[in-house]
Amino acid sequence: MSASVPIELTRFENGAREELREDMVATEEPLEIRVEGRTISIVMRTPGHDRELAAGFLLSEGVIKSAREVFDITTCAAQPGQEKGNTVDATLVRPEAFDITRFSRHVVTSSSCGICGATSIESVLKNHTPLAEEWQIDPEILFALPAQLTRRQETFRSTGGLHACALFDRKGRFLALREDIGRHNALDKLIGWALLKKRTPLREHLVVLSGRASFEMMQKAHSAGIAMVAAISAPSSLAVEFARASGQTLAGFLRGRSMNVYAGAERLAG
Amino acid sequence: MSASVPIELTRFENGAREELREDMVATEEPLEIRVEGRTISIVMRTPGHDRELAAGFLLSEGVIKSAREVFDITTCAAQPGQEKGNTVDATLVRPEAFDITRFSRHVVTSSSCGICGATSIESVLKNHTPLAEEWQIDPEILFALPAQLTRRQETFRSTGGLHACALFDRKGRFLALREDIGRHNALDKLIGWALLKKRTPLREHLVVLSGRASFEMMQKAHSAGIAMVAAISAPSSLAVEFARASGQTLAGFLRGRSMNVYAGAERLAG
Repeated sequence: MSASVPIELTRFENGAREELREDMVATEEPLEIRVEGRTISIVMRTPGHDRELAAGFLLSEGVIKSAREVFDITTCAAQPGQEKGNTVDATLVRPEAFDITRFSRHVVTSSSCGICGATSIESVLKNHTPLAEEWQIDPEILFALPAQLTRRQETFRSTGGLHACALFDRKGRFLALREDIGRHNALDKLIGWALLKKRTPLREHLVVLSGRASFEMMQKAHSAGIAMVAAISAPSSLAVEFARASGQTLAGFLRGRSMNVYAGAERLAG
Repeated sequence: MSASVPIELTRFENGAREELREDMVATEEPLEIRVEGRTISIVMRTPGHDRELAAGFLLSEGVIKSAREVFDITTCAAQPGQEKGNTVDATLVRPEAFDITRFSRHVVTSSSCGICGATSIESVLKNHTPLAEEWQIDPEILFALPAQLTRRQETFRSTGGLHACALFDRKGRFLALREDIGRHNALDKLIGWALLKKRTPLREHLVVLSGRASFEMMQKAHSAGIAMVAAISAPSSLAVEFARASGQTLAGFLRGRSMNVYAGAERLAG
């Protein structure tokens, strides 16, 4: 697997829809980290240097204290017969000293977890059907939204340190904005705002993200029925794949009167 | 708790050390999310809109499917007598239908997890002693590092979608750079690179981060013995607090020949 992959997209340049073109996006795939054959974490990562990722994770999360405790770290197939690559197993010099319960805590792990991107998408869509809303938005409405986001990001202005998500309806009317040090939290707050107001599912709404669009961001938006996500920055490969499978529209690099539309371009009028 | 807090820092402007000044940084604190009194997640977040965060989390992680399933969401004290604010409990209309084991998976949760920032810092430093390395670096060496980072970020150049971390020694010599869609992964890969080369602990080294510095990034660096972290962007409040408690140097907004030094300014010569 490569760190980036080519993706077909519809480009809007200075307001005008251009022909399909291809561009590179960063690869996102799950990696299952095992210790002595037992799963201790599944992380969404860019493939490459996976043994290093597992080794660093073991040290930085306190599973080991030094390199001397590691016997070997190998990349392996999750199940016999499966493709090698999204699972790493670490064996320890003293396996009997490893207490997995020290690292177990009841944590919601997204149903998205799986051992490859396709599995991740499948398992989400098993519980949430694809969105089939047939509505359109004028691209000019979209182009005007980043300025609103910037204007309303109060804490970012004073600290330079927060992600933001904002919710708009298809007419471009502002509904809410939430900021957080974590991009997932900012989106969860926005969705929670709608939920507590009994406005979910959000059938004819879109979110604008101050940063990048990952698989998990698309999946969270989808859980609230949000059919359109527009990011100021880049999407990941799995975000694009998920959007295509889930019926979502995904735009990236929304800047000035330009953007890349990676999925669901039919919701853009004109 | 507020979304941002004032922090004292040492400013370097155009290469020159200025007097202490104060600036705002984004607040980072743990939030424990409970369902029917049982912890299902601890997330590091910016305080504010915590009930919304919990509500959105429940929906987007599949604990509930609609607002109708929620009976109430309240902010509460984690233990009787503790300060209110970092714990949210959700009660459900049909609590008997909630199966916590559906959301349990053996996952390494950082020892950093706790119900307030101070607890988080304490619990990390219980296992890792503060760093007392007495070495210095010429600020001019630091100012030259972001350009190296940018030059070496290959995948970012083609996709615009990756975080990067790079490791340097105190003479400013480049050792390694790793990119990933997740900032934590990029740092874990870098630490894992050193670990697999038997170079940990990294006593006289520093990392440069392409983005922001959070508590977890500082804690990961600390686990590898890294006494200096320089970020191109902003730090969080808990990153600063952790750096001060752990003996780390933390610089932010490292741009041109300027930066903010939030902790450990004694490691900067001149």
